[in-house]
Amino acid sequence: MMSTANPGPLTLVNNDLVAITTLVGSAMNLATQSLLDADLSLAEKVIQADANIDTLCSAVEDRCLELLEDKRSTGSELRSIIGALRIAASLERMGDLAEHVAKQARMRYPNAAVPQDLRETFAIMGGVAEAIVSKSGAVIATKDVSLASEIAIHDAEMDFRHRELFTIVLSPSWAHGVEAAIDVTLLSRYYERYADHAVSVTRRVINVVTGEPYVAVDITS
Amino acid sequence: MMSTANPGPLTLVNNDLVAITTLVGSAMNLATQSLLDADLSLAEKVIQADANIDTLCSAVEDRCLELLEDKRSTGSELRSIIGALRIAASLERMGDLAEHVAKQARMRYPNAAVPQDLRETFAIMGGVAEAIVSKSGAVIATKDVSLASEIAIHDAEMDFRHRELFTIVLSPSWAHGVEAAIDVTLLSRYYERYADHAVSVTRRVINVVTGEPYVAVDITS
Repeated sequence: MMSTANPGPLTLVNNDLVAITTLVGSAMNLATQSLLDADLSLAEKVIQADANIDTLCSAVEDRCLELLEDKRSTGSELRSIIGALRIAASLERMGDLAEHVAKQARMRYPNAAVPQDLRETFAIMGGVAEAIVSKSGAVIATKDVSLASEIAIHDAEMDFRHRELFTIVLSPSWAHGVEAAIDVTLLSRYYERYADHAVSVTRRVINVVTGEPYVAVDITS
Repeated sequence: MMSTANPGPLTLVNNDLVAITTLVGSAMNLATQSLLDADLSLAEKVIQADANIDTLCSAVEDRCLELLEDKRSTGSELRSIIGALRIAASLERMGDLAEHVAKQARMRYPNAAVPQDLRETFAIMGGVAEAIVSKSGAVIATKDVSLASEIAIHDAEMDFRHRELFTIVLSPSWAHGVEAAIDVTLLSRYYERYADHAVSVTRRVINVVTGEPYVAVDITS
């Protein structure tokens, strides 16, 4: 399954998944930028690019189905194919979540969707999103499941920021009203779900590599 | 694939999925009730029961993988197995969303998480959730894809209520403050995502039955 002069079909699927993590990471990066800068054209770019991510994810699914129809796959290859299907579904959702962030930026333009005193929180959440998706991509590429602990730390950081945001929004000093409170709550949830999906991707790889059962992500409600 | 004296393995998987839709529907019903009545013991019941839904969904996944390993499945059976995997993943998420609603009810107990003037909205959303999951179950059971149009109507109703709620929360007459606004926004999103997953389940069945490509659900951001 390692890259060779003649890569096997599963290596190609894996390469595609790694490429999609890059796109999904870039989408969230640009979405965060559009949010922090109230940059409409950047937001539009992210929104338009999501169709491309969807198409690539569908192509991976089609390829996996073809491989299954082949019936030449062994037990561990079957696990890889099912894992790839699941990973593609998570990456597609991560792309949607980046698009949601960009749509929120677009909806409030020319105003900023994020009040000044929460910019730092969202800058950090954007940074954590970048780190977690890049490590998820590395896990898919290298099958190095030891990165899972670092990914768990990023996820815990994201959960912490998500909870911290509630504290800020609900404090008596919150001066931005109900609409901004709802905006930042939903935005924060998009980042937090994005990280959950990155964790899920990693657990799928672990399941494929080790054969240990997949552990569902305990999603923050 | 129809039920006979000796049901095939795919019929058994299908029966399991139908049984899970019933559990997932019941979970959301009870969660709505716990929310509207600020009923702590009912909320706890829903939260505890979610592990059972997760276990049943995992069992379906394991069974699907065994069927794939068998290598006796034909093209359309393979599509059914992949469809079942995807449906199980959606049902598992629907169970999580019901659990989220119950957790919100528990968090605000002994107070109600939903202000009096939004009770009707959530009662309706609960009713729509009940209708949509029951029809999704019927689609899985009967493969009668003509129900898809009714399911789309339920989903549109849910989207309408979700948007209406924003109007209520953001109106100058909203008197319940930021915390209640955030509570009902997140709750509304749980119902709306629940309906999205029910639509996704139906589209997976259509994909299996007709062979037409699966159409991703356009998720309300």
